[in-house]
Amino acid sequence: MKYGARNQLIGKVTGVKKGSLMCQVSLSIPANSSMASVMTIDSLEDLGIKKGDKVRVVVKAINVLLVKE
Amino acid sequence: MKYGARNQLIGKVTGVKKGSLMCQVSLSIPANSSMASVMTIDSLEDLGIKKGDKVRVVVKAINVLLVKE
Amino acid sequence: MKYGARNQLIGKVTGVKKGSLMCQVSLSIPANSSMASVMTIDSLEDLGIKKGDKVRVVVKAINVLLVKE
Amino acid sequence: MKYGARNQLIGKVTGVKKGSLMCQVSLSIPANSSMASVMTIDSLEDLGIKKGDKVRVVVKAINVLLVKE
Amino acid sequence: MKYGARNQLIGKVTGVKKGSLMCQVSLSIPANSSMASVMTIDSLEDLGIKKGDKVRVVVKAINVLLVKE
Amino acid sequence: MKYGARNQLIGKVTGVKKGSLMCQVSLSIPANSSMASVMTIDSLEDLGIKKGDKVRVVVKAINVLLVKE
Repeated sequence: MKYGARNQLIGKVTGVKKGSLMCQVSLSIPANSSMASVMTIDSLEDLGIKKGDKVRVVVKAINVLLVKE
Repeated sequence: MKYGARNQLIGKVTGVKKGSLMCQVSLSIPANSSMASVMTIDSLEDLGIKKGDKVRVVVKAINVLLVKE
Repeated sequence: MKYGARNQLIGKVTGVKKGSLMCQVSLSIPANSSMASVMTIDSLEDLGIKKGDKVRVVVKAINVLLVKE
Repeated sequence: MKYGARNQLIGKVTGVKKGSLMCQVSLSIPANSSMASVMTIDSLEDLGIKKGDKVRVVVKAINVLLVKE
Repeated sequence: MKYGARNQLIGKVTGVKKGSLMCQVSLSIPANSSMASVMTIDSLEDLGIKKGDKVRVVVKAINVLLVKE
Repeated sequence: MKYGARNQLIGKVTGVKKGSLMCQVSLSIPANSSMASVMTIDSLEDLGIKKGDKVRVVVKAINVLLVKE
């Protein structure tokens, strides 16, 4: 399985918050960092993920914004 | 300084590859993971970043795709 | 503070509409134009913005679609 | 003609910079602000735009990041 | 009418599911394939679309992820 | 293999055009429609795709813009 995206991390689902149409999945990645993904509840159901599951976290490099503070 | 995005990591620039208009910045994040950002060369010059610099890596949660393998 | 994005405007918050998970922030920019941003309610709380506040409006150029009518 | 996007401004093309595959279109919007769009050169040719042309600038609200400085 | 995006299909609205702020529009495209678009309910109202309507489906090529299984 | 995205089509690679940093992959999908994806050349090499290969085409619904003409 290969993805056309530069960013691929392995995350563990730490929580799912559901809205009326969309949902927000919280993830932990190595070194105690956290990430989050927003998708439709329909997509969440297709994924079939729940707290504790491992998932691949994919982000195209163009969607990564850098800030120099 | 506060950002309206769920994903904010601290990265270190490990390399910059320039194309004719766009460029690709390689980053290391904690736990030896790597990430990448693509932007215009104009934006790279505004940022003024070079190898070794610390940057904030910002990604809106909607741009994070999860895959269950 | 420098951002790796071509589009940076200064906007003033004119309203916030909250859904169950996401929210929509209305903004005015110079010359009586208006813009809007959608984010999670969690991100809104991190930002801590309210009506009348000034914010920086950041958009990567790749997310700008041009139409010739 | 109606678009499913919250952000719609009228811009004037002030310049086009071509890379090998992508290009960057500079725009002026009211009140002397400037914006930019990145697209493929193929899309630029479909648009058929040149310096001085008026275009509609469309951005989905989810792609607008707010920062509180 | 010309769009600065590589992906333009003609779709037919097969359903609209409304959340509290966002909505999800289901579409059929040729060869019995289906697609979906998420937008704000405000944008849906601007569009004024309903089941059975024809719409143009526009996606910038940078937002298309390829996977090799 | 499950993806957290509403849009998943099967496409066939019909061509690859390389720039200096980015590349553009042309695809045919059922009913003689065509699509395109832009990614880094690094991602193209990871994918290892060539003309004639079948790929999964994944697009998050939020990145789909509808236009009513």
